Amino acid sequence: MSRTVPENLVALLTEPNFGTLGVVRADDTVQVNPMWFEYDGEHLLFTHTAKRQKFRNLQVNPSMTLAVFDPHDPYHYIEVRGHLERVEPDPTGAFFVRLAERYGTADPKPPADSADRIVLVMAIDKVNGQ
Amino acid sequence: MSRTVPENLVALLTEPNFGTLGVVRADDTVQVNPMWFEYDGEHLLFTHTAKRQKFRNLQVNPSMTLAVFDPHDPYHYIEVRGHLERVEPDPTGAFFVRLAERYGTADPKPPADSADRIVLVMAIDKVNGQ
Repeated sequence: MSRTVPENLVALLTEPNFGTLGVVRADDTVQVNPMWFEYDGEHLLFTHTAKRQKFRNLQVNPSMTLAVFDPHDPYHYIEVRGHLERVEPDPTGAFFVRLAERYGTADPKPPADSADRIVLVMAIDKVNGQ
Repeated sequence: MSRTVPENLVALLTEPNFGTLGVVRADDTVQVNPMWFEYDGEHLLFTHTAKRQKFRNLQVNPSMTLAVFDPHDPYHYIEVRGHLERVEPDPTGAFFVRLAERYGTADPKPPADSADRIVLVMAIDKVNGQ
């Protein structure tokens, strides 16, 4: 396990695969949801809003774990364990639009809730996968 | 949210889609892995062994959350929240073989670790999805 993403797993993060993000709820159960994400070579970035449950959960417990598997070969997967390093405002929805383009949305527009949009910047602590 | 799986989401569980299972580690971080599963109309069943970390984690915190998305339409997904209701031994690996068949393994054989094989029987507490 390492903070470095091994060569054979990097494409899982750079291709526009959906991820499944797990966070811990206040009651110590797990919330797991499909998420868009971007890998900048060091962090994993997610679009979110400051008014949702997941964001409140992360204030209590900053741990975040992302699983991604190859849709053509689910035995090829990566699990990235990390934590919320910081939150950046995205009041114009520009990051949302960039992610929407990455995931193939035609002519994406900023979302209606742009004023509340944020970028969750996840630091990588450990990587597993095959 | 309900224990009942809504009609529009049931196929996500009955088709041989890979799931992503989240459990809480002893250090309060999340473990998220791709998993085979079976839905018996009431519980979600997983093959596992009594010697792995996930099993030890579940002894401390029995919460389990499974996310499944449609590989052809990732916006169609289900999140099933629940807990480990019981563990059943599978010393011949028969349940492992049944799951392997469900997921398209040709002529599956019992695994080498059959003696330690168990079935994790997850009770469903809540269902989300779209």
